Amino acid sequence: MNSWFKTLILRKRDGDVIGEEDWRRFVGALVAGELPDYQVSAFLMAIYFRGMTTEETATLTQAMASSGEQLSLGAGPYVDKHSTGGVGDKVTLVAVPWAAACGARVAKLSGRGLGFTGGTVDKLEAIPGFSCSLTATRLKELADAVGCAIAEARAIAPADKIIYALRDATATVEALPLVVSSILSKKIAGGAPAFVFDVKAGRGAFARDEKRARDLARALVAAAKAAGRRATAVLTAMDQPLGRAVGNGLEVAEAAATLRGEGPGDVLEVSAAVAAEMLVSAGVAGPEGARTRLARALEAGDAFAKLDEMARAQGAPREWRQRLPRAAASANVFAEDGGYVSLLDAFAVARAANALGAGRATKEDEIDPAAGVVLHKKTGDAVSPGDVLMTLHYDDDRRLAEALRYARAAAEVGDRPTSRPAVLEVLR
Amino acid sequence: MNSWFKTLILRKRDGDVIGEEDWRRFVGALVAGELPDYQVSAFLMAIYFRGMTTEETATLTQAMASSGEQLSLGAGPYVDKHSTGGVGDKVTLVAVPWAAACGARVAKLSGRGLGFTGGTVDKLEAIPGFSCSLTATRLKELADAVGCAIAEARAIAPADKIIYALRDATATVEALPLVVSSILSKKIAGGAPAFVFDVKAGRGAFARDEKRARDLARALVAAAKAAGRRATAVLTAMDQPLGRAVGNGLEVAEAAATLRGEGPGDVLEVSAAVAAEMLVSAGVAGPEGARTRLARALEAGDAFAKLDEMARAQGAPREWRQRLPRAAASANVFAEDGGYVSLLDAFAVARAANALGAGRATKEDEIDPAAGVVLHKKTGDAVSPGDVLMTLHYDDDRRLAEALRYARAAAEVGDRPTSRPAVLEVLR
Repeated sequence: MNSWFKTLILRKRDGDVIGEEDWRRFVGALVAGELPDYQVSAFLMAIYFRGMTTEETATLTQAMASSGEQLSLGAGPYVDKHSTGGVGDKVTLVAVPWAAACGARVAKLSGRGLGFTGGTVDKLEAIPGFSCSLTATRLKELADAVGCAIAEARAIAPADKIIYALRDATATVEALPLVVSSILSKKIAGGAPAFVFDVKAGRGAFARDEKRARDLARALVAAAKAAGRRATAVLTAMDQPLGRAVGNGLEVAEAAATLRGEGPGDVLEVSAAVAAEMLVSAGVAGPEGARTRLARALEAGDAFAKLDEMARAQGAPREWRQRLPRAAASANVFAEDGGYVSLLDAFAVARAANALGAGRATKEDEIDPAAGVVLHKKTGDAVSPGDVLMTLHYDDDRRLAEALRYARAAAEVGDRPTSRPAVLEVLR
Repeated sequence: MNSWFKTLILRKRDGDVIGEEDWRRFVGALVAGELPDYQVSAFLMAIYFRGMTTEETATLTQAMASSGEQLSLGAGPYVDKHSTGGVGDKVTLVAVPWAAACGARVAKLSGRGLGFTGGTVDKLEAIPGFSCSLTATRLKELADAVGCAIAEARAIAPADKIIYALRDATATVEALPLVVSSILSKKIAGGAPAFVFDVKAGRGAFARDEKRARDLARALVAAAKAAGRRATAVLTAMDQPLGRAVGNGLEVAEAAATLRGEGPGDVLEVSAAVAAEMLVSAGVAGPEGARTRLARALEAGDAFAKLDEMARAQGAPREWRQRLPRAAASANVFAEDGGYVSLLDAFAVARAANALGAGRATKEDEIDPAAGVVLHKKTGDAVSPGDVLMTLHYDDDRRLAEALRYARAAAEVGDRPTSRPAVLEVLR
């Protein structure tokens, strides 16, 4: 038992605001292994109930960021983006090269997927030859040379790993200031002076309802600013999957198509909103100028060219698009009734894709980069009985029956067309 | 990580009422070592914030009581009493033999003192030859033969020990339903069908303010009733020490004097209230009849005779009163100003007594049964400059200076006499 920390628990329990020195001491002692788990988890539960001020969150976040390796990017129009995670979320693959094509610079650390949402590293590794194993030095070199580069996050914010493991075991994952400090500490360790948060709301998101997502978006922006960074957030819909492709290789293909002007409208809409905010945050353009630049880069082919350049700089062969993985087999899910798709449950689609091998339940699971689901109808689309709603792509049919069950349960058909925009709000 | 328990934490966090089966499973898994500490402490903090219903408290309490050895007393006018702990609290030594002299039967498990309040076992062991090391069988035999017997609690409610250690480390000691289940589980394991709780309020008590003490008293009575026991509570003042003696041997002498009609008024008042409730709870008398019987037993000498009988049954020699320990040295604290004693801080007096060797800071500390403090003036008493306020009795002078500092700081003299009753309320 740590007596100093017991007093800190008591103070947070009673609603005290904790100062910078104590937050730093907490993170230091935590990483040094000086705090028993049972005290830390009680502290986290007290935070769940009492919350934290923006100042407290920013202070904790900075201490967590300092607990491990930190990138030093120096001067330049660097900007980073972060998504709270969604199904079919390939926005990084679109927005990062697109913003880079317009003058922003992105040296991005990403993670692998766990649970029902995919990770950017898994998606990129579906590209033959593509490597995310870059040192910090190499990441910055490539970002400076190409305009953007993406590496796997490894040694950053070890305090976050310790806290997250305890939150996961103690039903405190949902504590908003802890969500914020977890996300933001890793971004701050990534070294960029400006961030764009893509905060998703809906069935396939961490924040299932829009109010909670908005609270998270506001808290992220406020804490980032309190930590001396520029930040904006884009609130986006995640009731149905984003785009038509769910699965690593399928999503890379869709991202490339989007940058060539051939992608689904919602992927374009969300990616453009995120890329525009990246340009604004990076100080490259104002809100209107950003949109104009992005439109031009798309039309001129510069946006796709930047993705291609990044892929080749990180190890992909010239003809990588033609060599994306393809699954050996496929199965269709058909509409039974006519009408309009009223629901396309992102969470259920994710479970179907994961059953096919597109995701992992534990860190050790192998991923099949070719596996996944392609949606032929999305919410609001008219359907007739017998129409193909979605296609399941797979190499391993051991869990096909399970995947089909999830996929069939994902879609509902109703009488009237309904839809909501993909971008709900921009919070600056 | 235990997944079932994670869900239980989540439910309590969100304010769900947890049912009997889950409470029992919690206690079973806890005692079996199947629940990681870090999950248990988060659960306890969630309880701190969300509370528990009376039903939940009673269910948890019964499961905790069942986690270890339980006494089986069978039919009879058995009744038990419990004090939340105070300074100079020798009520058990008075009320138990007094109630037994009037027909109640008491087979009581008691503890040793830790921190600033003394334990009944420590006090009884100041009597030469007195042993509290009784088996459950021997305790019941003595209680049936004599009317009362007191043994040291050992193997009861192991779940409480685990929970208490975590509460102590995580600032959740104050969670009311956990206080109730800790106290009540040990009483229930003690086997009596009826309880009287002496809940103390003030500077020398766990509950420093009267409202909190009343809440605790109500919660104890409600949970005991929900667990199928009869129960009442007596709310008593603990701003100043109870009686004039603080220290194990000194308190035994004062208890004996009280039962001979020669003790301080407040000890008599509180003990009579507790003993009366014991007779009522045991079904031996109604509230008025109880008072009459107690007065008669005191006058007739039956009350002291019962203490004497119990002492001798548990190993004390015939002339035990003459052989109580006496300290080798003493030191007086004098009044500097004249007026009336306006404050006599029970906590400060306890620290003085402990510095002299009357208490222990850790379980391993040895106690000096002769050490302690005798108060010559109590709150409301008139004093002149130079009057002796209190006398410190000690064998070891290594911490005398410290004890004198505490003792001098304990008393304040003011202009007007103030006092409040020792018994604040009876809650049935």
